[in-house]
Amino acid sequence: MERKGDLMSFRPDIKVVDATIRDGGLVNNFFFDDEFIKELYKTNVNAGVDYMEFGYKASKDMFDVNEFGKWKFCDEESIRDIVGENNTDLKICVMADVGRTDFKRDIPPKKDSVVDLIRIATYIHQMPAAIEMIEYCHEMGYETSCNIMAVSTATEKNINQALELLGQSPVDIIYLVDSYGSLYPEQINELSKVYLEKAYKYGKKIGIHAHNNQQLAFANTIEAASTGVSYLDATMMGMGRGAGNCPMEAILGFLKNPKFKILPVLKFVQNRMLPLKEQGLKWGYDIPYLVTGILNVHPRTAIAAVKDNDKDYAGFYTATWDREA
Amino acid sequence: MERKGDLMSFRPDIKVVDATIRDGGLVNNFFFDDEFIKELYKTNVNAGVDYMEFGYKASKDMFDVNEFGKWKFCDEESIRDIVGENNTDLKICVMADVGRTDFKRDIPPKKDSVVDLIRIATYIHQMPAAIEMIEYCHEMGYETSCNIMAVSTATEKNINQALELLGQSPVDIIYLVDSYGSLYPEQINELSKVYLEKAYKYGKKIGIHAHNNQQLAFANTIEAASTGVSYLDATMMGMGRGAGNCPMEAILGFLKNPKFKILPVLKFVQNRMLPLKEQGLKWGYDIPYLVTGILNVHPRTAIAAVKDNDKDYAGFYTATWDREA
Repeated sequence: MERKGDLMSFRPDIKVVDATIRDGGLVNNFFFDDEFIKELYKTNVNAGVDYMEFGYKASKDMFDVNEFGKWKFCDEESIRDIVGENNTDLKICVMADVGRTDFKRDIPPKKDSVVDLIRIATYIHQMPAAIEMIEYCHEMGYETSCNIMAVSTATEKNINQALELLGQSPVDIIYLVDSYGSLYPEQINELSKVYLEKAYKYGKKIGIHAHNNQQLAFANTIEAASTGVSYLDATMMGMGRGAGNCPMEAILGFLKNPKFKILPVLKFVQNRMLPLKEQGLKWGYDIPYLVTGILNVHPRTAIAAVKDNDKDYAGFYTATWDREA
Repeated sequence: MERKGDLMSFRPDIKVVDATIRDGGLVNNFFFDDEFIKELYKTNVNAGVDYMEFGYKASKDMFDVNEFGKWKFCDEESIRDIVGENNTDLKICVMADVGRTDFKRDIPPKKDSVVDLIRIATYIHQMPAAIEMIEYCHEMGYETSCNIMAVSTATEKNINQALELLGQSPVDIIYLVDSYGSLYPEQINELSKVYLEKAYKYGKKIGIHAHNNQQLAFANTIEAASTGVSYLDATMMGMGRGAGNCPMEAILGFLKNPKFKILPVLKFVQNRMLPLKEQGLKWGYDIPYLVTGILNVHPRTAIAAVKDNDKDYAGFYTATWDREA
């Protein structure tokens, strides 16, 4: 498989997806104020970002609306309060988790929604339920993506089975997701090729969603892009659960398409993201995340260690190894 | 050129070089206390690190000994105070800058020194002076390396000329140095191949010294390693000028040779590096460094912005662009 593009060219097929509210919402339980979201929307429009993810379509039967900000639920009117009819080139997406979304109740037909793309997130063993949701959302008139989470712990056989099922489904985009931030660029390269082969066979697009546990989120994103992956997730200042994601300011500095503008992003980071840090929200690379990344396990214990300001890195390594290995 | 090794193998040719004192010394003017250095030495021995760089051999005629800690000068007795006769597998190195070292006065014959390797750092236009130093140090009985700095602003022709000169010199190791942290992994891959071709032709080894301006120091280091580069510079907690370097804890988590141990490094980081941060020393990724990395310029203005706590990232980008472009 030939590498696609080089540092003097750009690929019109590349789409940048801003996932700040959705993955960043996992840091603050989705309590962003409306001014923040409006400014983020404007920033994405001005920066030439292709998609903006507003949050989750979580079921209000399963999650208490008083415990989470409104972007956990992404009611149609909440999004319209920000974007109106969204008369811009920026497309709108939301994420729907398999098993946590009452999709038949909560996802209206596309003609009644400003949302363009429903991103269905699933663990690999939930694939039949994911396919049901993909088919439903497709019939409702949406673009759909499927984000297969935690593939660093899945077998090659299961990944291939999942990709075959998705290939035969109406899904538009299949995401390679490094949930634990444990994959090295050479693994991203190999997995990208596996995903892209199925994409060529079935006429799908491939996306990448990276985590920064080992300071590799940006590197893995551009490695995937060079291999041919075209949907690139990023977040402002890398905001996202635990070690966070590929920083928008880094990926826009890399991409050569002149439609992308880094200055609006730098302004948003200094005016809107720094205050979140000053309020005490914690995200971004830290050594406990490196450890869970190296050991290829869920970052939940690392998130707790960072929250508790526990600096016993060696003890954390030994305890994680003991528990998981 | 075939990629070398994979995630289930290890390459005995890989050597890890701890550059904490030398590159980290640029953060605190080399004022480390002896307990720190002794503990670092023990840590490197226990972690299986191959080389430990103690600092610079700077000329005392050019630099005031009262303004810098002793590791700016690396007198033989200073090193012996820490390592004695160094009866370990860890080799000792020091850096000598072209034009800033009185090498004929300050570098004794190898038989009188515990230093194993002299690392000669040069800009590409100083290559004849570097060759003179290499020949001198080689005759004195040392291993030598040559670190060609700032190659991201050099022409291919000049890089090739420099590599030819070095190939024909007695130097043992040639370093690919990303001084500005501006190179992407695909460029590291291409440059590594250029360096490695010369290495095969002349029987030299190649090393990599990366900076973390774009959060790519670790990614670039493992990209170079996979391409066949065998000397890998790293520093504890990534300590180094500006955005810092490839973190030792990350590279030891990646390397598969069972001789490498991450736990001593994690202990050193929590016990010795965190206090440096608490004392107010600043290093590591920040957005001004990203900007100078993207624009491929020296980080000096970014270092000043971070020191002054200047958070006008957009203004910094515009000013840097205006001045440099």
